[in-house]
Amino acid sequence: MIFTDRERDYLAGQGLGRLATIGPDGTPHVRPVGFRLNEDDTIDIGGPNLRSSQKYRNVRTDPKVSFIADDLTPDEPGAIRPGWGRGVEIRGLAELLETDRPLAPGFSDEVIRVHARRVLSLNLDAPGSQARDIERGADS
Amino acid sequence: MIFTDRERDYLAGQGLGRLATIGPDGTPHVRPVGFRLNEDDTIDIGGPNLRSSQKYRNVRTDPKVSFIADDLTPDEPGAIRPGWGRGVEIRGLAELLETDRPLAPGFSDEVIRVHARRVLSLNLDAPGSQARDIERGADS
Repeated sequence: MIFTDRERDYLAGQGLGRLATIGPDGTPHVRPVGFRLNEDDTIDIGGPNLRSSQKYRNVRTDPKVSFIADDLTPDEPGAIRPGWGRGVEIRGLAELLETDRPLAPGFSDEVIRVHARRVLSLNLDAPGSQARDIERGADS
Repeated sequence: MIFTDRERDYLAGQGLGRLATIGPDGTPHVRPVGFRLNEDDTIDIGGPNLRSSQKYRNVRTDPKVSFIADDLTPDEPGAIRPGWGRGVEIRGLAELLETDRPLAPGFSDEVIRVHARRVLSLNLDAPGSQARDIERGADS
């Protein structure tokens, strides 16, 4: 698997993430997105009319993406650095798929599926930022 | 000025944004960042040890960035689409500067300053997403 238990729990508990794609002129784009963590540790991103969105068109032209789910750490027992940011960033390649399981009511039946090539964990398993490369094929 | 009054109020009230940059291999990166809206509608992004961060190195190599501040619209009087996402995305060019006014205690004295070339407003002034290009020189 790609994620640690802590990262998986965190991702499963977050409703909103941000997806960065590359636009036609090479400028990054970043948008808030709904997402789902799949059992194989890929991430599906959906939306209403996803096919007509700029991020969908961007991925079709350049599949390199970065996805992040993050928030501020609440002041709870065992929390690492309360009040600081925490989260998981996933850099990798996206593919465009049809799904028979839309992420939410009103979402269209396409998804952008993100395959991790590098994972950066921030204040989750340990203080600070830890990065690691993911072997190709680890999610397939 | 670059932003509408509503966008400016919104940006001034948000403490956290996300900055997308382009990494050495052309993959986008996206990270949570503290930011400040300046009087000339540029955005300054800071952090502890900013100079040693990947985003700082990315901007030095490729100044094309996208910054977004967004959240879920609360259910308040006058709110557009409560429960939906809202925010402002700013695409443009970043420069690296020294500042004598760090954004927060513990932040280093460098900032990444974002100059807008295109602004996308989401569920702020009106339902849905509106995009507009910014003339070069509008912020200088």
